[in-house]
Amino acid sequence: MNYRIIFRMIGKLLLVEAALLILPLIVSFIYEDNLYWSYLIPMGCLLVIGLILGNLKLKHKDFFAKEGLVIVGLSWIVLSLFGCLPFIISESIPNFVDAYFETISGFTTTGATIIKEGYIEALPQSILFWRSFTHWIGGMGILVFVLAILPRSEGSNIHILRAESPGPTVGKIVSKIKISARILYGIYIVLTFIQIIFLLCGDMPLFDSIVHTFATAGTGGFGIKNDSIASYSDYCQIVIGIFMILFGINFNCFYLLLIGNFKRLFKSEEFAWYLGIIFVAIIFISIDLKFDTTSIVNGDSTGTIVKKAFVHVASIITTTGFTITNIDAWPLFSKFILILLMFVGACAGSTGGGIKVSRVAILAKNAKRAVKKLLHPRSVSNIRFEGEIVEERVVSETLNYFIVIMLLFVVGNIILALDPIVTSLETATSAVASCLNNIGPGYGSISVTFEGLTSISKITLIILMLIGRLEIFPILILFSPKTWKKN
Amino acid sequence: MNYRIIFRMIGKLLLVEAALLILPLIVSFIYEDNLYWSYLIPMGCLLVIGLILGNLKLKHKDFFAKEGLVIVGLSWIVLSLFGCLPFIISESIPNFVDAYFETISGFTTTGATIIKEGYIEALPQSILFWRSFTHWIGGMGILVFVLAILPRSEGSNIHILRAESPGPTVGKIVSKIKISARILYGIYIVLTFIQIIFLLCGDMPLFDSIVHTFATAGTGGFGIKNDSIASYSDYCQIVIGIFMILFGINFNCFYLLLIGNFKRLFKSEEFAWYLGIIFVAIIFISIDLKFDTTSIVNGDSTGTIVKKAFVHVASIITTTGFTITNIDAWPLFSKFILILLMFVGACAGSTGGGIKVSRVAILAKNAKRAVKKLLHPRSVSNIRFEGEIVEERVVSETLNYFIVIMLLFVVGNIILALDPIVTSLETATSAVASCLNNIGPGYGSISVTFEGLTSISKITLIILMLIGRLEIFPILILFSPKTWKKN
Repeated sequence: MNYRIIFRMIGKLLLVEAALLILPLIVSFIYEDNLYWSYLIPMGCLLVIGLILGNLKLKHKDFFAKEGLVIVGLSWIVLSLFGCLPFIISESIPNFVDAYFETISGFTTTGATIIKEGYIEALPQSILFWRSFTHWIGGMGILVFVLAILPRSEGSNIHILRAESPGPTVGKIVSKIKISARILYGIYIVLTFIQIIFLLCGDMPLFDSIVHTFATAGTGGFGIKNDSIASYSDYCQIVIGIFMILFGINFNCFYLLLIGNFKRLFKSEEFAWYLGIIFVAIIFISIDLKFDTTSIVNGDSTGTIVKKAFVHVASIITTTGFTITNIDAWPLFSKFILILLMFVGACAGSTGGGIKVSRVAILAKNAKRAVKKLLHPRSVSNIRFEGEIVEERVVSETLNYFIVIMLLFVVGNIILALDPIVTSLETATSAVASCLNNIGPGYGSISVTFEGLTSISKITLIILMLIGRLEIFPILILFSPKTWKKN
Repeated sequence: MNYRIIFRMIGKLLLVEAALLILPLIVSFIYEDNLYWSYLIPMGCLLVIGLILGNLKLKHKDFFAKEGLVIVGLSWIVLSLFGCLPFIISESIPNFVDAYFETISGFTTTGATIIKEGYIEALPQSILFWRSFTHWIGGMGILVFVLAILPRSEGSNIHILRAESPGPTVGKIVSKIKISARILYGIYIVLTFIQIIFLLCGDMPLFDSIVHTFATAGTGGFGIKNDSIASYSDYCQIVIGIFMILFGINFNCFYLLLIGNFKRLFKSEEFAWYLGIIFVAIIFISIDLKFDTTSIVNGDSTGTIVKKAFVHVASIITTTGFTITNIDAWPLFSKFILILLMFVGACAGSTGGGIKVSRVAILAKNAKRAVKKLLHPRSVSNIRFEGEIVEERVVSETLNYFIVIMLLFVVGNIILALDPIVTSLETATSAVASCLNNIGPGYGSISVTFEGLTSISKITLIILMLIGRLEIFPILILFSPKTWKKN
């Protein structure tokens, strides 16, 4: 293992984090909340450690997939260690486990909070800003950002891009990694600006527009109001709904749009599955809510019901997690559909989490083939996706990915079931599904805040959030003794 | 498709069913409950139709796996159609869907009832007898019984034995099918007698001993008391617990015991997994119950807690479903462990349901390999089970089996979630898991009776019970258009 290259890369990352902390510091000055030291102290630490590590001399430039995975796994853990300092120093979240949970939840774009119910609006503006900004940083991947600004390509950075980008395929748009990373961030920044403008047009204050856009762009879901985004106008809710869906699309699609390749864009099978699932889920939930006589939506007009279904389907499938109504009080059928959507997740190559639509499509096609094979054991057929035959190796990798996610889901449920405040299967299941797929809210006693859970539950969920965001490998490899053996 | 051989076989089966109805008829005479016609009418119908179909002349003797599967699938559906007549004619269960649900639940050894809470003790003795007797008939498989008594082997009956016996491997003990079927039924009858004697020694009345043994032997779970087996002595509960575990063992093990091959018996990996899972589950649940301060077991002595854990773990893993306490009031952790055990199920080649321990062992080993493959994509390793390398074809078949069961589980949950009385995920999940794996009780509004569900839910669960008992194929093939095409 080339430790020097790992430390060097992490060093550069810490310097970037120091730079990023300037933004909440500026917000702190604007609102004069006297929290300057909450950002200056971590910035100082980051600068010192970052300069030392970032200037390590390399003995050799060997750089393999293993190094890439370890860099990504360690980076996210270290990033959040420094990222949680503003919460602790400002005493907004004095407890370390809580502050770390909140930061991991931010960077992994989960959006699950440990802030006490009703206390979010009491937080200082700069802290709220930093909290939402972590979503934006984590959404596209901070290492992708580092790759975009590094003066020259060091080593085989494709391994880093591959490890940090969501989805089974590589997020490389053009052959050069640096250019790819810049295009990705370019699209990301432009879309972010467009959303801010749209929200401003809906009379949302500037500060609110910026933080909500950060949370939408990263598909995170941290809000700044006690009721998430329920108190904003229908226009703003629908704008956020549409942008959630946009940020859940594979960024390659935007690139195809930019270069005018509409033919390939409209032939994208993942895109079609994505829109199809959203459409069907909205219809199902709208009908369920319309005919349900017991739930809180009873009495809503059809328009309001469809809006609620639309915003929540968009919020859950893109793994953002904004809410506009208490979904915990919805009828079971709608709640169950939402749990299924949690696992589906957004498109590969987007900022969203979950298993990803392309993997789900391959799994669905494999399940269909499995049924066929049960009946006709000797039948041989290939799975086609995006117009091409999917290699059996990829099918089996996708299946293995799914199996491991399900195992983690079951183990997570067992641990959460031991928590005294987790008293129903819905609570345990939704908490684990929500964190593992980087969504945010759940049902029952964690439907608003994860505050009441034990530290064991919180640490379990922290690990699951990291595993979910980084798609297993980079975290798993840190726990494998083989990784640390000398060869 | 050789329709004549299918009808002929079903005809013989109906004749056997007519003969089996003599037993409840005798019970009816003994208790003078005036329900003679409830048995005589179905017997008459069965005799007439059975004689007509059973004596069909064969045009040719072609008999393939497809015919075997269709015979088994159709047999179980037709068997239950006639089997539910006593319930309807006696007006014990006047509604057809309910009566059919109860009969399917009996034959598939599920043990889920639609009898109203508190009304079981009000049923006539002969009806209670027939209800429990369906468990005994379905446990070992009625077609296996037909094979055992058929004068000479007709066609390749191995296909029938394979389709009806639970587990991934063929239930053939010796090379001759007829002899195998006779050995299986021999062991089954002897164990049944031994259990009756043990229960009689515990001062359980003869009638109660017989019906409870039927329900234990078939791993069914229908009781004759409103509180299942909770009102019997500790001795009786423990005897039933031990016999549940015995009937969940692969019957090959008893054969090995009979012929004195202890070496192979003790080397059985499935047997070791089975006992291991039972042991660990009892420990976990006992500790959880011991330290839980909120549930109803609070205040029980350690001995009582371990007994409760033992009986319920035995009851659920063997998919029997007897209860001695209200498990719905247990803490979530214990309830979740029981849901997991529902899927594990008993050993292959036993009378129990579920996915089967041998499949679970292969799936667990495959999951371990999947984790390894994620980290080291080029690693190649074989899965070993029972001392031999498992062919990749078998691994992939097991995986496909699991995928289809999970799909059915999700679809079942979606349908059940629409039921007005199913208001929690626990209820939906446990109802579907319980029926699909042929267990019986669940949580929430179906923890005692399935009575309140809509007909749509009941029909869904009927199909799932059949699919679970016959392990997908024989039911799936009936729905495949290809099966009915002329070639």
